Amino acid sequence: MPLSKTLSDCLLHVDNALPQSVDRLLELLRIPSISTDQHYAPDCERAALWLVRTLNDLGFEAEIYPTPGHPMVVAKGGHYQEGPHLLFYGHYDVQPVDPLYLWDRPPFDPQLRDGPKGPIIFGRGASDDKGQLMTFIEALRAWIAVHGSMPCKLTLFFEGEEESGSPSLIPFMEKNAELLKADLALICDTGLFGENTPSIVTTLRGLLGEEVTIHAADKDLHSGMFGGAAINPLRVLSRIIAGLHDDTGRITLPGFYDDVPELPDAIRAQWQSLAFDHASFLGDVGLSVPAGEQDRTPLEMLWSRPTCEVNGLWGGYIGDGFKTVLPAKAHAKISFRLVGNQNPHKMRQKFRDYVTAQLPSDCTATFKPHGAGPASAMHISNPAFDKARQALSAEWGVTATFVGCGGSIPIAGYFKTYLDMDALLTGFARDDDQIHSPNEKYDLSAYRKGIRSWVRILDALTK
Amino acid sequence: MPLSKTLSDCLLHVDNALPQSVDRLLELLRIPSISTDQHYAPDCERAALWLVRTLNDLGFEAEIYPTPGHPMVVAKGGHYQEGPHLLFYGHYDVQPVDPLYLWDRPPFDPQLRDGPKGPIIFGRGASDDKGQLMTFIEALRAWIAVHGSMPCKLTLFFEGEEESGSPSLIPFMEKNAELLKADLALICDTGLFGENTPSIVTTLRGLLGEEVTIHAADKDLHSGMFGGAAINPLRVLSRIIAGLHDDTGRITLPGFYDDVPELPDAIRAQWQSLAFDHASFLGDVGLSVPAGEQDRTPLEMLWSRPTCEVNGLWGGYIGDGFKTVLPAKAHAKISFRLVGNQNPHKMRQKFRDYVTAQLPSDCTATFKPHGAGPASAMHISNPAFDKARQALSAEWGVTATFVGCGGSIPIAGYFKTYLDMDALLTGFARDDDQIHSPNEKYDLSAYRKGIRSWVRILDALTK
Repeated sequence: MPLSKTLSDCLLHVDNALPQSVDRLLELLRIPSISTDQHYAPDCERAALWLVRTLNDLGFEAEIYPTPGHPMVVAKGGHYQEGPHLLFYGHYDVQPVDPLYLWDRPPFDPQLRDGPKGPIIFGRGASDDKGQLMTFIEALRAWIAVHGSMPCKLTLFFEGEEESGSPSLIPFMEKNAELLKADLALICDTGLFGENTPSIVTTLRGLLGEEVTIHAADKDLHSGMFGGAAINPLRVLSRIIAGLHDDTGRITLPGFYDDVPELPDAIRAQWQSLAFDHASFLGDVGLSVPAGEQDRTPLEMLWSRPTCEVNGLWGGYIGDGFKTVLPAKAHAKISFRLVGNQNPHKMRQKFRDYVTAQLPSDCTATFKPHGAGPASAMHISNPAFDKARQALSAEWGVTATFVGCGGSIPIAGYFKTYLDMDALLTGFARDDDQIHSPNEKYDLSAYRKGIRSWVRILDALTK
Repeated sequence: MPLSKTLSDCLLHVDNALPQSVDRLLELLRIPSISTDQHYAPDCERAALWLVRTLNDLGFEAEIYPTPGHPMVVAKGGHYQEGPHLLFYGHYDVQPVDPLYLWDRPPFDPQLRDGPKGPIIFGRGASDDKGQLMTFIEALRAWIAVHGSMPCKLTLFFEGEEESGSPSLIPFMEKNAELLKADLALICDTGLFGENTPSIVTTLRGLLGEEVTIHAADKDLHSGMFGGAAINPLRVLSRIIAGLHDDTGRITLPGFYDDVPELPDAIRAQWQSLAFDHASFLGDVGLSVPAGEQDRTPLEMLWSRPTCEVNGLWGGYIGDGFKTVLPAKAHAKISFRLVGNQNPHKMRQKFRDYVTAQLPSDCTATFKPHGAGPASAMHISNPAFDKARQALSAEWGVTATFVGCGGSIPIAGYFKTYLDMDALLTGFARDDDQIHSPNEKYDLSAYRKGIRSWVRILDALTK
């Protein structure tokens, strides 16, 4: 089918205006909007204001909505247009950058530069999620430039706490359900499958974050004076962590797998057809052996099985040299990826019960919750999924696939729970984008084709 | 036995001159000789010069010996005297003072003031080790005042790096063996047993320090993208640490206990007679249950049994908030307290072999050594030990005890290894002296009786 004149005009406009699209992304990347560290709260606000200004310039009515944490941005446009009411979601906050010394150049001095496989946009947030959210904004910019109007009624919704557990999100959605309700949510925070296959995510794992501190003596002790007789909380914590998995890689919390469904045959067949190359997936990061439950395939480990991971562990003397201290406390940040109907709050309680039951004499544990969201499964019978799939296939020259996602994008579940709205997740990140790591990048080709993909999706959904 | 006239004269002299002895100690305490901080290097030199001047005034030939770090002081006296050649060792450097705000008054503006249990000498170094080393110098001063001569041939040896790992000590001892060799070393850097019982330390545990890093992926990973399929080095390290002890508290390294002697019956009987109150020892720091090997007494755990402790543990994200990272590396600082004939270098190898054997696929380990010294056991058959014990018992009105020490005072082992010289360790610090902490103090009563103790020991050893 030949492209309609306006669609091809729009795509041409994207290509011609790409340098300016890159410049605008670099501008946003220069703002160090690290949400987990309060030092950067003013920068989070600057990033929110940047979006408001950008969207107002495009003809939206954009506003800052303060929260107890970082502000939300909501923009409304295309009030008088026909067709579906679409909501687009993205997040303007980014991950911390430490260890800084591993970055090739300053993470907040972004640059368009050459990479081994072509030009890249380098900087913290280039891929997650500033670059991705900008694909949608730049697609709208092209659309408006060519058509002189918006494609349909639109709500754009940006948060600044995605990388720190979204503490303000649910209260905000509950309070502003009318403001946010639309026919379909679009989310751009996921990646291509392999190098070049566009994908729509149909399942997402949930996430439960928990911080535990083991308390022993009431002060740090000298290991010569007390060593042997005084309990060491680092040893206690190590045993607790070691006991969370058995030798086959299964998580040992009682009843942990009760609400974990087996993979439906249809999905299993589709995943097999993906011919996922786990050897190169792991090989790219210096690993070779899938480390999860021994009786599961690598894709199951990543997409349909729950996990328990230590994301941070610390205690005692961790500077240069040596100090013979028996510390008073030991700390861990632990997260669970959840699937199926696993209830995050029940799982939190199971974890706390397990830790408490493991404590030896003289030790106590305190807990700090860090967010909890269930797994999500999309209703792919919604025709929008097929339309988007065809639009993506046309742009990339490869049939787009429905995939699972090992990550947790709780917002997709929240849209369903709080606004009764399906979410269509697609995105253009590549596995080597180094998100959450030093030297984050977004391929220029992904940025260009991402913008063009949204132009095509908007065209397909509003035709 | 009535005191000889000259001994009672000496003791009386100590009491009469006590105010001047305190003034001299205060003068030394005013010098902020913090060895670990290069900022205070000139102050370390001032403290060394203060000792040289003080000892020369007493009739010694004292000299500064430069090292790559802080200088040594060696003083010679009593060349023509009869009897044993005694070496006295102490250290003029002190611990850092931070956090400064926890001090009741400036740490280097020392003062004789009232404490809850009597007058105290307040200030950094009052107990560790300036007050203790001054007990010996002031004892000599009294001796010389009364006798008009030194008690025997004497070498006084002071270092300024004890609180920062003594990097110059072994090279200095190797190069100056002739200068330092004597019949017996006296060391005043330990404490009373309980409130009021003088003690001579007869065993010291050795110390082995080791840092291990577990390497997994070649970069930090996102736990959503990789969690389940990628190995987590924090989990690996936790299992390794958890596996170092069995459920009864024994260390699991093969052959670890081969060179650990059982406690001789005589020592066991003596330790039982000490009526060590482990409930209050642990209770003072908020603990209640001895945490070591289940079939050992608390004193064995502290003095005669080896330990393995984690002194530091870290990896992943340890800042505020949460980061769903699967780290590339995990680190631990681990130390072993050694006893009997345990060879630190063999133990290091055992530990490394164990870690290496525990590594799953895709993980490697690197190691960094942090010092290694064997345990020491004094030859208490040397008659000097019994003479000193009687002298201490006479001064304190309580039978002095032979005790173990859970800590590691490497100099005692070095005197044996490099100079083939036994060391007699006694000292007058109390558990509440706050050494290495804010508000360090030395009881005036400990200072007085400490000086008098040395007068009696010198009398006993030279009679």
